[in-house]
Amino acid sequence: MITKNQIKYINSLQQKKFRTEHQSFIVEGAKSVLELLKSDFELELLFVTQDFFDNYEEILSKLPLQVEIVNQQELEKAGSYSSNNAALAVAKTKENHELLVGENEYALILDDIRDPGNLGTIIRVGDWYGIHKIICSHSTVDFYNPKVIAATMGSFTRTNLYYTDLEVFIKNQSTPIYGTLLNGNNIHQTKFAKSGYIIIGNEANGISEGVEKLVTDKITIPSFGGAESLNAGIATAVVLDNLRR
Amino acid sequence: MITKNQIKYINSLQQKKFRTEHQSFIVEGAKSVLELLKSDFELELLFVTQDFFDNYEEILSKLPLQVEIVNQQELEKAGSYSSNNAALAVAKTKENHELLVGENEYALILDDIRDPGNLGTIIRVGDWYGIHKIICSHSTVDFYNPKVIAATMGSFTRTNLYYTDLEVFIKNQSTPIYGTLLNGNNIHQTKFAKSGYIIIGNEANGISEGVEKLVTDKITIPSFGGAESLNAGIATAVVLDNLRR
Repeated sequence: MITKNQIKYINSLQQKKFRTEHQSFIVEGAKSVLELLKSDFELELLFVTQDFFDNYEEILSKLPLQVEIVNQQELEKAGSYSSNNAALAVAKTKENHELLVGENEYALILDDIRDPGNLGTIIRVGDWYGIHKIICSHSTVDFYNPKVIAATMGSFTRTNLYYTDLEVFIKNQSTPIYGTLLNGNNIHQTKFAKSGYIIIGNEANGISEGVEKLVTDKITIPSFGGAESLNAGIATAVVLDNLRR
Repeated sequence: MITKNQIKYINSLQQKKFRTEHQSFIVEGAKSVLELLKSDFELELLFVTQDFFDNYEEILSKLPLQVEIVNQQELEKAGSYSSNNAALAVAKTKENHELLVGENEYALILDDIRDPGNLGTIIRVGDWYGIHKIICSHSTVDFYNPKVIAATMGSFTRTNLYYTDLEVFIKNQSTPIYGTLLNGNNIHQTKFAKSGYIIIGNEANGISEGVEKLVTDKITIPSFGGAESLNAGIATAVVLDNLRR
């Protein structure tokens, strides 16, 4: 069973303040927990249903920690999912290490992405297109927010995030800095450099003024209809698809 | 003010059963209501705050119906938004007319899209790429669901949806039927025909077996990383961006 104190502790990790204090975060659901077990994240607690245990006994029996068998109600009481009949883990967060692109590599820069679902989708889309480094403004939503982790569909295990002052970070780079703006070059005609950064702006306000001044290559997704904008996750996917073709 | 009976009526329109019975649906928020007022939808009721009225008096004074000034609390009580300081309208739904592509035209076919946010995003993305006809399986979520309308960000006014039996519909077409499948041709190398249909499958299960058999051109979005899939809205955007380039 999950003890009262454990439930209180796990509940507290839904708040950034306590994630920072304990350097721990929650991972819920079959897909995300299975990806976690394959990753290099350090596990702290693991609760699974009997069904999940039976299905993945080979993986679970090799883990260096005690796996607790619990019921669905306990998982739902401890975690943030309204329905969870599989698993809940607590893992240690990683330190905020600087990330830089290597040769032949791209990274994303997120300027004030506020919605956890959007950040999760961007991480998942980045993973699809082979982008595993994301530099975030301090105002971007926390990577370890349970809604972000859920929306990545497991891609959080393959992607590193670095929270920093974007203007300072960008000024120190020598590769092209691409930014999606309204008045940029059509991405269908853009020849991307071998390495660089792609900035994705805030959902409502786009790229902030200070960061926009540092964009070396303005790009635009051409529109063929009446919609005024695309959401941040969609824009990321379209830009990365053009980068990779 | 919004009367008790009106609140009851508007609340009921959150359910498909009552939308069908009354042939009416709700539109909420500044952006969506403004787009509605510019469209050919027939208005039934319109409630706005004093601020919204003052900002858009020129448009509102020309309407062929009584505009009621109400407060934010009333809008939130009547509608589905937890926060709405602008406007709420009730409009008449359109009949379920057959849609077919013309020359040099594409339409989307949605096979069992269940999530309202996904359908709304697909409509918005379609509108961005100039797609204004969408054919839906009967199991696809209702166009007039308030969450769908909200997620379209106004694009619902420029897009027509037709709910039908997909297998019967597709069998009657002579243009290519593109379907996003795991084993298709790389969309980066696909030469799209001048007109046709693009099928987007269910969020979890993809395109259903019966419909898959009718796909004439299998296409695949190439992956460069670890994510197993892309969501339906993202996949739609990437396919349409490749179609339009």
